[in-house]
Amino acid sequence: MRAVQWQEGVLRLLDQRLLPERHEFVIGKDAAAVACAIRDMAVRGAPAIGIAAAYGVALAGAARYIASPETWRDDIEQDLALLAASRPTAVNLFWALERMRNVIKHVSGDPTQALLAEAKKIHEEDIAANQHMGQLGAGLLEAQSGVLTHCNTGSLATGGYGTALGVIRAAHAQGKITQVYAGETRPWLQGARLTAWELLQEHIPVTLIADSAAASLMAQGRIQWVIVGADRIAANGDVANKIGTYGLAVAARHHGVKFMVVAPASTIDMKMLSGADIPIEVRAAAEVLTLNGQAIAPTGAGAWNPAFDVTPAELVDALVTERGVVLRPDRTKMLELMRSR
Amino acid sequence: MRAVQWQEGVLRLLDQRLLPERHEFVIGKDAAAVACAIRDMAVRGAPAIGIAAAYGVALAGAARYIASPETWRDDIEQDLALLAASRPTAVNLFWALERMRNVIKHVSGDPTQALLAEAKKIHEEDIAANQHMGQLGAGLLEAQSGVLTHCNTGSLATGGYGTALGVIRAAHAQGKITQVYAGETRPWLQGARLTAWELLQEHIPVTLIADSAAASLMAQGRIQWVIVGADRIAANGDVANKIGTYGLAVAARHHGVKFMVVAPASTIDMKMLSGADIPIEVRAAAEVLTLNGQAIAPTGAGAWNPAFDVTPAELVDALVTERGVVLRPDRTKMLELMRSR
Repeated sequence: MRAVQWQEGVLRLLDQRLLPERHEFVIGKDAAAVACAIRDMAVRGAPAIGIAAAYGVALAGAARYIASPETWRDDIEQDLALLAASRPTAVNLFWALERMRNVIKHVSGDPTQALLAEAKKIHEEDIAANQHMGQLGAGLLEAQSGVLTHCNTGSLATGGYGTALGVIRAAHAQGKITQVYAGETRPWLQGARLTAWELLQEHIPVTLIADSAAASLMAQGRIQWVIVGADRIAANGDVANKIGTYGLAVAARHHGVKFMVVAPASTIDMKMLSGADIPIEVRAAAEVLTLNGQAIAPTGAGAWNPAFDVTPAELVDALVTERGVVLRPDRTKMLELMRSR
Repeated sequence: MRAVQWQEGVLRLLDQRLLPERHEFVIGKDAAAVACAIRDMAVRGAPAIGIAAAYGVALAGAARYIASPETWRDDIEQDLALLAASRPTAVNLFWALERMRNVIKHVSGDPTQALLAEAKKIHEEDIAANQHMGQLGAGLLEAQSGVLTHCNTGSLATGGYGTALGVIRAAHAQGKITQVYAGETRPWLQGARLTAWELLQEHIPVTLIADSAAASLMAQGRIQWVIVGADRIAANGDVANKIGTYGLAVAARHHGVKFMVVAPASTIDMKMLSGADIPIEVRAAAEVLTLNGQAIAPTGAGAWNPAFDVTPAELVDALVTERGVVLRPDRTKMLELMRSR
């Protein structure tokens, strides 16, 4: 199942807020619609956001050129700004916009085909990167591993296949995984709604847990690897990812459980010296105070709802990218990785 | 608000599954009804379960004596067994049943008044213990403390006042607390539904968080104390409490945040050498897979739903009981505490 689809001149985004009950698509006909879909989490997952934004720029380029062939390069800056403002933490968004901006700069005449080609290229490269990371990450797992994942990092969160879930798919295909546990991932329940759904479709047995049961599972020796994605990785290897990731990393280290982060190199932001520099999106309290639209707390209660947290590099045992694996990442190793192309 | 009320010959239990939206009472007219209310979590919280069970025995004693004044002492064993089987982890249940059994053994003639008097005594002693623990625990807090609590340990979970929440009440009254954070406590959401409600009624500002955001909150220096209750404490100081407690203890130690357990001495079970001996209730997967009857995961997904976890004594900085405070509990200190009466 592809969550981001280009079809007959429009962008179709599988509305991930309605899964698993309903399979409906949000139709993106222009950049504004795509920006809304990102902000409101119809599409989510760092790589998927980047890909959707790239298609958004392609839509904007076609529209702006038709409207004004002379000034479209200036006009499209509004669309780029709108897309850039949709969500602050995942850097793949900004990386994809930069790639599209590079095409905008160099294309001559009608940019429609060139922009669409670049968006499709970003999309295809992401899938290829995921498949490669799947193999690299699976190579790190021992036989008979129990794994725990958090949030959703599968086909839905990426161009296809998945980052952390790609590693789990690949390792499962190799017969290395005894059981996959998925944290339900409050407040949005991406684990319960999306990861469980994807794994069931692939006939990979999955056991959901309340997020807070993870440490207990580790204490029982049922987890060998925690495998997660990333929304932005700093130059020193610190990882911003879905809220709850950091707590899992702390618990994993306490129990001698290995901790793997799987993300394409586009997630690495060398301009951020450390995780402290990464902007962390704080979303509406209502997301914590309600569950599936129902109030679960009394009127008057407040909530703190950061969408992400930062895991220091020293808690990361392996960072898997399509450029290779970095064990115990630090500033020097990250620099080497980014120079390796 | 008292969650457990004796009124005109019946036990009234505030149905905690319906809070905060609805305030309805489950009426316990016999031991079977009380056992159901405990099993199905209309009444919850270790001390409240013990008190409810004691009243259940009083109801049973009256009924069994009327039915058969000669054999009531044998007949009531069925009721004691039913109540004992209602939930396995909280030891206050078994402790309260033992106290009632002692009255059964020694009473002569109609046991109704003696059993009711003992149940009321258990109830009143619990409230007094809570108030004393509130003062003892508050004494441990520094000025300007941010505190995090988990599940619900307030009036609703006890005879009245609360254990961990009693400490928070007392410390707040002393002006020592800057902010109370409450984990929502999946899957039953006792934090969101009950703790937030109790604190708002007392005009104590409360900020809810997804359980998995706790580590991030600690990393930001916003928490000085984690304060929780207990369902059973072993002879070495290991603590069984609501699932998620252990993960908080691990994160607290990692961040140098202090960890306090507040529980009456009736929670201590010297027959359990360590936490590994404590039976941990695993509840239905449906509690994780649904919310208010609504599915939040795809059909076919499994779930692991332990109601409790075990925090090793070495992660506990302070154990507060009505008999006194034990810093860094261990076997020797626990023995001293239990001999101290």
